[in-house]
Amino acid sequence: MTPAPPSFDPGLTQQYTGPLLRAINKDGSFNVRRRGLRGIAGSVYMHLVSLSWTRFWGLVALAYLVANIIFALLYTALGPRALRAAETDMGLNAFGKAFFFSVHTLTTVGYGDLYPLGLAANVVASAEAAVGLMGFALATGLLFARFSRPNAQLVFSDHMVVAPYRDGHSLQFRIANRRKNVLTDVLADMMLMTVEQDSTGKLRRNFAELKLERKKIFFLALTWTVVHPIDESSPLAGKSAGDLERLQAEVLILIRGYDDSFTQVVNTRYSYRWEEIEWSARFEPAFDVSPAGHLVLDLDRIGATSAVTNVSRDA
Amino acid sequence: MTPAPPSFDPGLTQQYTGPLLRAINKDGSFNVRRRGLRGIAGSVYMHLVSLSWTRFWGLVALAYLVANIIFALLYTALGPRALRAAETDMGLNAFGKAFFFSVHTLTTVGYGDLYPLGLAANVVASAEAAVGLMGFALATGLLFARFSRPNAQLVFSDHMVVAPYRDGHSLQFRIANRRKNVLTDVLADMMLMTVEQDSTGKLRRNFAELKLERKKIFFLALTWTVVHPIDESSPLAGKSAGDLERLQAEVLILIRGYDDSFTQVVNTRYSYRWEEIEWSARFEPAFDVSPAGHLVLDLDRIGATSAVTNVSRDA
Amino acid sequence: MTPAPPSFDPGLTQQYTGPLLRAINKDGSFNVRRRGLRGIAGSVYMHLVSLSWTRFWGLVALAYLVANIIFALLYTALGPRALRAAETDMGLNAFGKAFFFSVHTLTTVGYGDLYPLGLAANVVASAEAAVGLMGFALATGLLFARFSRPNAQLVFSDHMVVAPYRDGHSLQFRIANRRKNVLTDVLADMMLMTVEQDSTGKLRRNFAELKLERKKIFFLALTWTVVHPIDESSPLAGKSAGDLERLQAEVLILIRGYDDSFTQVVNTRYSYRWEEIEWSARFEPAFDVSPAGHLVLDLDRIGATSAVTNVSRDA
Amino acid sequence: MTPAPPSFDPGLTQQYTGPLLRAINKDGSFNVRRRGLRGIAGSVYMHLVSLSWTRFWGLVALAYLVANIIFALLYTALGPRALRAAETDMGLNAFGKAFFFSVHTLTTVGYGDLYPLGLAANVVASAEAAVGLMGFALATGLLFARFSRPNAQLVFSDHMVVAPYRDGHSLQFRIANRRKNVLTDVLADMMLMTVEQDSTGKLRRNFAELKLERKKIFFLALTWTVVHPIDESSPLAGKSAGDLERLQAEVLILIRGYDDSFTQVVNTRYSYRWEEIEWSARFEPAFDVSPAGHLVLDLDRIGATSAVTNVSRDA
Repeated sequence: MTPAPPSFDPGLTQQYTGPLLRAINKDGSFNVRRRGLRGIAGSVYMHLVSLSWTRFWGLVALAYLVANIIFALLYTALGPRALRAAETDMGLNAFGKAFFFSVHTLTTVGYGDLYPLGLAANVVASAEAAVGLMGFALATGLLFARFSRPNAQLVFSDHMVVAPYRDGHSLQFRIANRRKNVLTDVLADMMLMTVEQDSTGKLRRNFAELKLERKKIFFLALTWTVVHPIDESSPLAGKSAGDLERLQAEVLILIRGYDDSFTQVVNTRYSYRWEEIEWSARFEPAFDVSPAGHLVLDLDRIGATSAVTNVSRDA
Repeated sequence: MTPAPPSFDPGLTQQYTGPLLRAINKDGSFNVRRRGLRGIAGSVYMHLVSLSWTRFWGLVALAYLVANIIFALLYTALGPRALRAAETDMGLNAFGKAFFFSVHTLTTVGYGDLYPLGLAANVVASAEAAVGLMGFALATGLLFARFSRPNAQLVFSDHMVVAPYRDGHSLQFRIANRRKNVLTDVLADMMLMTVEQDSTGKLRRNFAELKLERKKIFFLALTWTVVHPIDESSPLAGKSAGDLERLQAEVLILIRGYDDSFTQVVNTRYSYRWEEIEWSARFEPAFDVSPAGHLVLDLDRIGATSAVTNVSRDA
Repeated sequence: MTPAPPSFDPGLTQQYTGPLLRAINKDGSFNVRRRGLRGIAGSVYMHLVSLSWTRFWGLVALAYLVANIIFALLYTALGPRALRAAETDMGLNAFGKAFFFSVHTLTTVGYGDLYPLGLAANVVASAEAAVGLMGFALATGLLFARFSRPNAQLVFSDHMVVAPYRDGHSLQFRIANRRKNVLTDVLADMMLMTVEQDSTGKLRRNFAELKLERKKIFFLALTWTVVHPIDESSPLAGKSAGDLERLQAEVLILIRGYDDSFTQVVNTRYSYRWEEIEWSARFEPAFDVSPAGHLVLDLDRIGATSAVTNVSRDA
Repeated sequence: MTPAPPSFDPGLTQQYTGPLLRAINKDGSFNVRRRGLRGIAGSVYMHLVSLSWTRFWGLVALAYLVANIIFALLYTALGPRALRAAETDMGLNAFGKAFFFSVHTLTTVGYGDLYPLGLAANVVASAEAAVGLMGFALATGLLFARFSRPNAQLVFSDHMVVAPYRDGHSLQFRIANRRKNVLTDVLADMMLMTVEQDSTGKLRRNFAELKLERKKIFFLALTWTVVHPIDESSPLAGKSAGDLERLQAEVLILIRGYDDSFTQVVNTRYSYRWEEIEWSARFEPAFDVSPAGHLVLDLDRIGATSAVTNVSRDA
C-alpha cells in the first residue's frame, strides 16, 4: 500500500503533538529554538548587534574593566620590578599601578609615567597593545553595524480590525514608519495559519494566503492600512470570532520595502492571533494638519480604532 | 445602514481639513512631521549622516572641544595634586594643564609631560581614554557612511514642460546624473496628485498613475527625458493650466537605479506642482561635443527649455 | 559543409576529454582552477575574509611579530645611539630594546621610555607609525567584513531521498538555517547534470532543469524540504539508481534568500552526486515541541531519514 | 505646423554635429565629460576608491608627508621655546624636531621625548591630534571601500566573433570571472548603436536591442559565451562588415550578476566597435582538464578564436 504523500512544510511545521505558542513573536522572531547550533562567531556578532544600547555600552564597559584586571594581574604576578614608575609615590598601590599601566597600554595612551622593565613585562605589554587595537577594531565594526541597521522601523497597530468594506467587510491592520525617512516600493504579504485535528487525532497546521486589495505602495511616508477583503474566495469567508479561536488562528505578516537613507532593504515580520482581532471597528486617522500646513503623524495613534455596528462577531 | 467603504490611503492621506503644503519637498523628503517619535539612536545617526559637510565638521570640532572642557573641569575639581607636570613652568595655568592633559588622553597621544597622580585622577583618565576611542570609532563609522551614501546624485530640470509629442503633446521632465559614475537599469514612476471637494464639502486627495512612454533605461550616462504622453487615457487629457491650478496638481516622481561605483540602489523622490509646469516648451540639448569627440554634459543646462507655439495653456 | 552549431555552454563546460571530479564542492565552490589569475588585491582580500577564525588570528599575530622583527632589525642596524633608553638598565639587550621600541611605535602606545635619536631613527619610526595605523585600518576592515558576511548559514541534509509522493515518487533534500535569524523569500533552483558519450566518442555534459513542487517559501524559520516530483516530464522519469550512476548524475542546487539581520542576500550552492541519493526513504521530522510550547529544531537531525518500502532503486 | 515629435533619448544622445569617440570605454566608463560638476565630496571619494593601489598608497604617503610639513612649519613659527626636548642634543635641527614632534602627534604615538610648551603650541598640537585621528578614520573607510568593491571582475574576449550558428550565424562574445568566487544569476543585455544621417544631413544615433539566445545563466564559474542569433528579426540581418563600418556600429553590453563572496551586485558595461568584430571565427575552449580531474580555466585564452570558412564578411 502506498503511504500518504509527504506533506507540505513551509518552514513552520505542520504536525506536532502538544500545544504551541504563537508562531511569530512581537519582535518579528520565530518561536523556534535550536539544538546543535553552530557558527558561533556569526551568532555572537548578531547578538551584539541586536542588543539594546544600554546593554551594549554596559558590555563594552565590562569588557574594558575585565581586560584591564586580567592584564593587571599578569603584571602583578611578574613582581614589583616589572613596572617602573616615574616617581616613588604615585598615590597607588602595586595593583593600582599595574591596573593603570594596563589602561595606558590597552588604550595606547602610553603616558610613560609607568613603563615595563625586562623581557616578561615587555612581552605582556606588547600583547596587550595588540589586543587593545583589535578590541577597538571590533568595537568600531559593531558600532557601525548597529547604527546602519534599519531594524525595528515599523510600528504596527495593536490589533487587526474586521471593518466594513464595500458591500461586505475586510480584515485590516495599519503600519507607519517610526523614522523620518521614507520607505519606497513597500510590499505586504499576509497568511492565515490555523490548527486542525486530522482523522487520526493528530494536530496539524494549515496555511492559506490572504489576498490583499493592494499588495504594494510606492511611498510609506505616513500610514498604510493593509486590507484583506473577506470575499467568497477568502479562507475567512463565513468564519466567526469563535471559529478563529477554535482554529487558533494566527495571521502571519511579511513587509518589505526599500530604505533610501540606509540604502538597504527593510524586512519585517509580524503576526496577530485571534484574540488580537477587533471585530466591528475601523481605524481612526492618525494624523492632524498643523497650522502651517504640515501633516503631523501621531505614532501613538497608529492603533486607534472606533467601533462600527454592522459587523457581527458571529458572521 | 452600511457606512461608506474605507478609502484607499496610499501613505499620503486623502482626507484633511485645511490647506496643505506640497507633498514632496525639493530634497525628496515628505511634508510629514512625527509625534511620539521613537528609535532615537537611529534618528540621530540619520541626522548626522545627512548633515552638510560644513555642519558635520563643525559638530565634530564642537564635540571635541566640549568633551575636553568637561574632562578638564573634572581634573581641576580633583585639586592641584591630581596632575603631575614634567616641569614647574609649563606656560599654562591650572585649567590649561587640565585641558591639554585631557586632549592627550582623549586622543591617546599621551606624551607623558603631564600624567595623572592618585586613584581618582587615574580613574577619570581611564574613562576618558575609553570615551575617546569610542568617540573615534563613531566618527570613523559616520565618515564611512557619509561617503558611501549615493545621495543627492540626480539633477532634475527646474520645470516640467508640456511639449509637442507625435500628434499631440506630452508632459516631460529631465534628469541627469551629477556624478561621473553611471547609473544602470534606471526606473521611473510618475503619479498625479490632485485635490477635490467631495459632496459633503470635505477636501480629498486623489492619486492617479501617469503612464510613461519608456519606464526604464539601461544607462543614465547623460540625460534622460521622462515622457508621459497626454493621450485619451491620461488623467491630464483635456486639462488646461487653469484646471491644474484649481486641482492643486502635484506630480510625484520616483526614480530608482543601480549605482555601480557605490554598489548600491539609488532611490530618489521629487515632485513638481502646477506652477512648476511650463506650457508650450521643449528641452534644449544639455550637451556639446568637444573637439576631441567627447560628449560634454552641462549640468547647469538640465532645465534649459525653448518655447514652442502650438501647445495651448488652455488645452 | 556547415560545421555543427556551437553548443550551449552554461558556464560548466560540456566537452572534455578525461574523467572529472564533482562540479560543485561541499562548500559551494566549483571544481575550477584558474591560470593567469589577475586582480590580486581582491583575491587576497577574499582569502583573508573566508579564512577560519583560528587561521585569521594566527595570521594577524604572525604579521604583528614579523613587522616588529623587521623594524627592530632596522633600528639595530642604525647602531646603539639610534634609540635612547630612559635608564641604563632596561633588562633588555640591544635587539630587545629595538623590538619593544618597535612595538611602542607600531601600536602607537609610545610610552617614551625608549625614543629615537637622530634623523635616521626618527625617519624609520615615522614610517613605522604610519604602517601601524594602516595595518590596523586593514584589520578593522577585515574584521568587519568577516563578521558581516552571512556565509555558510544553511545546513543541507547529507543525502537526497527518493521518497513516495502522491501517486508516484519525488526527489527531495532538506535545508535548515543554522542561525537564529530568519531568512525570507527563499528561492530554490535544481538542475541535473549528466555525462553522455556522443557518436564520435567524446564525453559531453548535459544539463536539465528539475522542476520544483514549490520554488519559493516566505520564511525559512525551521526546515524546508525541497521537492522535485518525478512525473512524466521529469528528466529522471524511468531512471534507476544504476542509470544515474552510469550517467554520473550530479544534482546542482542554488538557494537564495534575504537575511534580515545582515540585511543581505544569501546565496548558496550545493550539489549531490548519484551516490548521495538514498532510494526509498523519507525525511524524519527534525524538531520537537518543548514543554513550554517552543518548537526545538535539532540541526543534527536535518539529514535523518527512515526507509520506506515501495520505491524501487530499479524504477 | 507641428514640429517633429521629440526623439527618444536613451541617455547617450541621438543628435550631434561632429564625429564622436566610442560610447563606452574599455573600463566600462562612458565617453561623457561634465561641466558644472557638483557634489565634490562624493566625486573625490569615488576617485580615491577607484585609483590604482600604487597611486593610492602614493597619495596616502604624500598626504602624510605634507600634513607633517605644514604642522612642522607651524611649530617652527611659534619659536624655539614652543617645543621642549627631553635632552639638549636630539641629533636634529629645529625643523627636524618640529617635524618629528608633528609625527608623534599626528599618529598619536606621543613618546614624550618632545612635548609642547605654552598655550599656542598646545593648541596646535591638540588640533593636530584630532586631524590625525580623522585622517586615519578616512583612510580606514577608504581601504574598506576599496577592498569590498567587486569591480573589474569580468574578463571579456578581445573581439566579438560572427560564428556559425544552427543554419545561419550569430554574433558572440565570451566572458569569464577573473576571481575564484562564483557569480550567480548572471544577466546579459546587448544593444546595437549605429549612426545615420537624416534627410536634413544631421547625424543621428540609433539604438536597437540584440536578442540573446540565453539571457541568464545560473552560475558563472567558468566561461559564458553570449550569443545573439542573426536571424531575420535581427537588426544585423543582411549586414556586411562594410555596412557596420559605414554605420560606425558599436555593440553595447551590460552584464549583471550576484557576487556571493562580496554579497553584492556586480554590474559591468562593455562595448565592441565594428573593428573589434572578427568575421568567420569561433571561440576555442579556454580550459583544460588537470590530471586530478579539475577543470583549469586559462584567463589568457578567453579571447582565443579559430577561423571558420563559411561566414562571409560580405553577408
